[in-house]
Amino acid sequence: MPLVRIDLSAARPLAARRAIADGVHRALVDVIGIPAGDRFQIVTPHGPEELLFDPDYLDVARRDVVYVQITLVAGRPRELKLDLYRRIAANLTDAGVRPEDVFVTLVENALDNWSVGNGRAQLVDLGAVAGARLEP
Amino acid sequence: MPLVRIDLSAARPLAARRAIADGVHRALVDVIGIPAGDRFQIVTPHGPEELLFDPDYLDVARRDVVYVQITLVAGRPRELKLDLYRRIAANLTDAGVRPEDVFVTLVENALDNWSVGNGRAQLVDLGAVAGARLEP
Amino acid sequence: MPLVRIDLSAARPLAARRAIADGVHRALVDVIGIPAGDRFQIVTPHGPEELLFDPDYLDVARRDVVYVQITLVAGRPRELKLDLYRRIAANLTDAGVRPEDVFVTLVENALDNWSVGNGRAQLVDLGAVAGARLEP
Repeated sequence: MPLVRIDLSAARPLAARRAIADGVHRALVDVIGIPAGDRFQIVTPHGPEELLFDPDYLDVARRDVVYVQITLVAGRPRELKLDLYRRIAANLTDAGVRPEDVFVTLVENALDNWSVGNGRAQLVDLGAVAGARLEP
Repeated sequence: MPLVRIDLSAARPLAARRAIADGVHRALVDVIGIPAGDRFQIVTPHGPEELLFDPDYLDVARRDVVYVQITLVAGRPRELKLDLYRRIAANLTDAGVRPEDVFVTLVENALDNWSVGNGRAQLVDLGAVAGARLEP
Repeated sequence: MPLVRIDLSAARPLAARRAIADGVHRALVDVIGIPAGDRFQIVTPHGPEELLFDPDYLDVARRDVVYVQITLVAGRPRELKLDLYRRIAANLTDAGVRPEDVFVTLVENALDNWSVGNGRAQLVDLGAVAGARLEP
């Protein structure tokens, strides 16, 4: 039940923005194993002076960063996270984003931190999420 | 001292947006027990292509999702969280939001993760927050 | 490798917004000890009805709040956090922000929650971040 925030340049065309959102979601489905229907994303376009980033920190040559911040339930093993980063960067190439410009950060929380509608805490009822080693 | 981010459709009128923010705050006051003055909210309106969501994941029929992400100090017991989701969904009905469209996620942090002005860490001085079972 | 979200009034001129972002970054460099190149910031301007805050909660007289939310790797000792809040508030004075209006909250995560480009998890390779007492 990840919530994905994507902050990117408003100069990227609408179709490209959608392709970026699609690519992030497909990576989550393919790597973490979340259901295809588990898609919740907020895309925010920004003017050039609103997205600040270093052009070469840690030897990555950035030109037009796409920020992807994913809030998700804790418990995914490190290998899955590392594979997720690789897959997102690969998928976003098809959406016209250089791998250097893909910035991803995860924020992990608990099963009872989610309500996906109707005022219910669906994950508590389910008792588990895809890909997690231990239930948090 | 929750920080509340509300991301919603720009097609919702200003008065409705305000009523949504009011409803989330009232739920936090009534359920978690935060003081009425403890209100800090960021409302971001979005174009239709910026808020992506599945129309029926987990059998919830969504049409116009309002994303509510609440950063707050850890320690609130599960029952309080579950009551909070119910109350937010109920309150937002008055603001013209279908319960199916209320998506809430919590991000929990620590007492020393907050400064609400003047460069001070007020929660560390207070040493506690409303509704928490154990001080984190 | 902090990711900094700054939400502020669109009435603040572009130069002031940039000075605010600069001031937050300088505080992170000077207090936490992150490298100068470790700069990743998202600045979002808002209309007046989008930034809601209490005008005097905990005896802080707010008029035009600047919200600063910093996602960073856990492990920084409390004293460093407290010094960070003081420094951000002080630096933002130069950018035309009253100390009362500086609202900061931290969200802490893990070393393997970051990819700063190229699909790699650079912090896992580095194995450490500046200023952390214990590696999370």
